[in-house]
Amino acid sequence: MLSKNKIKFIHSLQLKKFRDESGFFIAEGSKLIHDLAGSFNCELLVYTKLKEEDVLSIMAQERILTDEAGLCKVSAQKTPEGVLAIFQKPEPVVPSKEELKKQLCLALDDIQNPGNLGTIIRIADWFGIRHIFCSPSTADAYGPKTVQATMGALARVHVHYVDLATFLSEWNTINQGADFPIYGTFLSGSNIYLEKLSPNGIILMGNEGQGISPAIGKYITHKLRIPNFPENVPTSESLNVAVATAIVCSEFRRRSL
Amino acid sequence: MLSKNKIKFIHSLQLKKFRDESGFFIAEGSKLIHDLAGSFNCELLVYTKLKEEDVLSIMAQERILTDEAGLCKVSAQKTPEGVLAIFQKPEPVVPSKEELKKQLCLALDDIQNPGNLGTIIRIADWFGIRHIFCSPSTADAYGPKTVQATMGALARVHVHYVDLATFLSEWNTINQGADFPIYGTFLSGSNIYLEKLSPNGIILMGNEGQGISPAIGKYITHKLRIPNFPENVPTSESLNVAVATAIVCSEFRRRSL
Repeated sequence: MLSKNKIKFIHSLQLKKFRDESGFFIAEGSKLIHDLAGSFNCELLVYTKLKEEDVLSIMAQERILTDEAGLCKVSAQKTPEGVLAIFQKPEPVVPSKEELKKQLCLALDDIQNPGNLGTIIRIADWFGIRHIFCSPSTADAYGPKTVQATMGALARVHVHYVDLATFLSEWNTINQGADFPIYGTFLSGSNIYLEKLSPNGIILMGNEGQGISPAIGKYITHKLRIPNFPENVPTSESLNVAVATAIVCSEFRRRSL
Repeated sequence: MLSKNKIKFIHSLQLKKFRDESGFFIAEGSKLIHDLAGSFNCELLVYTKLKEEDVLSIMAQERILTDEAGLCKVSAQKTPEGVLAIFQKPEPVVPSKEELKKQLCLALDDIQNPGNLGTIIRIADWFGIRHIFCSPSTADAYGPKTVQATMGALARVHVHYVDLATFLSEWNTINQGADFPIYGTFLSGSNIYLEKLSPNGIILMGNEGQGISPAIGKYITHKLRIPNFPENVPTSESLNVAVATAIVCSEFRRRSL
């Protein structure tokens, strides 16, 4: 049975403060939980009779069988999917400079919408990007809405929260853009389809409304633009940031075919 | 002042049934309303003192100045943006077969999430796609969440609700894929980066969970796939449908550069 304390504990994980303090996060739905269970320690599994068999193979510290009403008490979803899990947040695996230098990474400057962040993590997974470096003001990768939008990609993509200016300035200083470019998208950048794109480096994406902040943007070595079509016709002012990330990552990976 | 009847009327437009009956839809926020006002007749404008000057240039049949509390009564947003408008839905402009034959269009088979649909309309706008043909079960392009996600793109993109099987079968029969191909994305399709892509034709995108239904998919003449990277490594099962649409449209338009 779900004790009052347990319910309170699960609720508390809706807030970043308590996720950070406890080191746990919530996931809901059978598919997502199965995907995450392969990579993260499951602390608690709450499920209804209907899902009992389905979650049998998931190893968890504690298992609680409840009814629909019980699940509703802890779920953040309008229509709970029959199973909720609490997972341990992973220790961030920070790659060495030598490792990183060979890879294509993402950096996110103040992405606010949890759904956008989750979608970007899923895109990174699809395109084999293993590390995302976020400004501290970016949404929390372990927030419930973000976790749901990742569709399990968190199991393969490492999300780091760093001082982006310091992080980018180090790369910028060492490399001067020569062998580890820092790319950013701007309306005034060079046509991405025609530019030379490196198989390694950092792709920086900016805030939903404001784009890349000047304090961060100054470390960019290559400015790119996704041209609209046809170019001289009025169109939307911009693309959604997750959509833009997808187009940019697709174009980088196409070049490595 | 906002009368009870007016409040009831605005609320009713949250539902597709009443949008269809009345021919009106809701938009919120100054930027969006300005974008739409250039293309659609504004029936009613409700705004607070703070936005009075900002909406001065918008022509509307009726204008109501209200306070924060009044706006909260009619807004569907947690934090109303100070202005809400009711617009007249446009008469669908159905292009002739001859016109359509020269264009690249989108067809949507049962896209359920209003945010996904809105994002797809915004992507279409960016890539100069003027017509989207949706199955009747696809979300309503004039639903409040969709309208907000389009960011004004509805002013330039025409969304048609049609029997997709009939629509696609006609094109399939006439052209046999020769000069007006019907493309669809599948996990088993041909690598989109390596395939020949036509500057005209239809790109069919499927439901978030189920993909393209077999009844519709049989009219596809060219199956495409967005390869993950690197190809032999485990990854997310799929991409979000709006993200996939963006990558596909980007690749089609890149070829026309």
